[in-house]
Amino acid sequence: MQADISVGNGVLGGVEPCVVVVGVGLIGGSIAAALRAADPRVTVIGIGRNVARMQAAQERGLITGWANSVSAAAVPPGSLGVVCLPVDRIVGAVRELLAAGCGAVTDAGSTKDEICRELLAERLFVGAHPIAGSEHAGFEHADAGLFRGRVCVICKGGAASTVVARVERFWQSLGLSLQWLSAAEHDRILALTSHLPHVLAAVAAGVVADEQLVFAGSGFRDTTRIAAGSADLWTSILLGNADACIESIRRAEQLLGEFRGALERRDAAALRALWAASAERRRKL
Amino acid sequence: MQADISVGNGVLGGVEPCVVVVGVGLIGGSIAAALRAADPRVTVIGIGRNVARMQAAQERGLITGWANSVSAAAVPPGSLGVVCLPVDRIVGAVRELLAAGCGAVTDAGSTKDEICRELLAERLFVGAHPIAGSEHAGFEHADAGLFRGRVCVICKGGAASTVVARVERFWQSLGLSLQWLSAAEHDRILALTSHLPHVLAAVAAGVVADEQLVFAGSGFRDTTRIAAGSADLWTSILLGNADACIESIRRAEQLLGEFRGALERRDAAALRALWAASAERRRKL
Repeated sequence: MQADISVGNGVLGGVEPCVVVVGVGLIGGSIAAALRAADPRVTVIGIGRNVARMQAAQERGLITGWANSVSAAAVPPGSLGVVCLPVDRIVGAVRELLAAGCGAVTDAGSTKDEICRELLAERLFVGAHPIAGSEHAGFEHADAGLFRGRVCVICKGGAASTVVARVERFWQSLGLSLQWLSAAEHDRILALTSHLPHVLAAVAAGVVADEQLVFAGSGFRDTTRIAAGSADLWTSILLGNADACIESIRRAEQLLGEFRGALERRDAAALRALWAASAERRRKL
Repeated sequence: MQADISVGNGVLGGVEPCVVVVGVGLIGGSIAAALRAADPRVTVIGIGRNVARMQAAQERGLITGWANSVSAAAVPPGSLGVVCLPVDRIVGAVRELLAAGCGAVTDAGSTKDEICRELLAERLFVGAHPIAGSEHAGFEHADAGLFRGRVCVICKGGAASTVVARVERFWQSLGLSLQWLSAAEHDRILALTSHLPHVLAAVAAGVVADEQLVFAGSGFRDTTRIAAGSADLWTSILLGNADACIESIRRAEQLLGEFRGALERRDAAALRALWAASAERRRKL
């Protein structure tokens, strides 16, 4: 099934000629779609366990070949590997790609500290987090434009500078603009800008009874949209960034308590000040 | 400025021939737009303090006449009055419209219990809450389709049945489907489906620092959209439903504490169960 292609260890014309995508879901599928849209000649090898789904992804034209597992036979030597698995399965897949002969490996995990610490000694690995996605799962929702105009965080870790440059060019080629953070900084910030909003969305959805949903307006709809995401995916993300998420939840509990206290005191000035501070922050987006 | 029209005390052809809208902002302006779109012959009298803004609303074709305050001179006898003011100013405006000769009066307030209790003796008043809106304010954002397919809660209170029927037809004519609740039930439910999500959105926006906003993705954007609403408006809504909002915040604090506890114990099964319950609720929407 796999295309017979060898790419040496370089980049041709600024574009990766061959990319191995481990995990062809929404993110992996969208990476494949963006690569194929940018250059239909690109080779995209998908790695996934489910034969029927890999065949379907190939029929859709997202991937040009596939295999059920990472191996030297499946990975064209020197190609770029991208791991798009749930965060608790990323480290293993990165090691497999490196052993199979990838020239550089990156990932799309929503948490970075554990992954990058475990892979600190790998000179060919650069951690990344393209901040894009949706509550949908599966390559059926793949979108070549998913990354356009979004931010990708790069965690250089212990990678060689030429590998960092290659991985940076790869993510940029999908339309992402780059930001550099240490893996620990990434996790502290994303706990506030992504993981906490997901928990708050789950809380907003969780306290409403089924028969009350008819009284939900567009505000509820928007606020809880991301609560529809996969339980497995979000369990692994929250556990993969547990300490920072606990801290972000504590800050939310404190602010929520301030809103409640102002209401209990019927303190209009305090409520207005709390609301105005949040509204101003939001309007800066 | 006001159109010279008398409408008796009835409804012509199922459509209100003359409606007095007190407060021509997003909601009042959208009601006016929907009425004018359905029948360009309808008379819509706007009541607002700001002369320049009332003139602008008339130039836009939203209202056919206006006045700075409610008076018998401004209100065609028997016409339908709709109060679209912040909740703490609704009762006074309803009383003025009734004194000025409206045949029926309704409101669009997001809280109902205080308003309906104060107006329980008014046989010509029916409380209502069209569950539609946006984080934008002002008639510049008026949208004739804002109410289409949305739910309007009717709180019958002490109104005469003919008045209830007239007000129900009015809201239905804007494209809303009706649900009937007592005012107290309305406030308990909306505290969960609307007021709490607004507070959680404000919390999600409030804990993030300005320089971290670059790392906010579409999830943060959606979850916090409604936090950009007006501080005055939301202060009056939360204070107008303080007890139910305090209770809904307590439930959110409890669920948030369960998420934190599961994370502190690194309890994947508990996290997955919490997430799955919320996700299932959200997917039912």
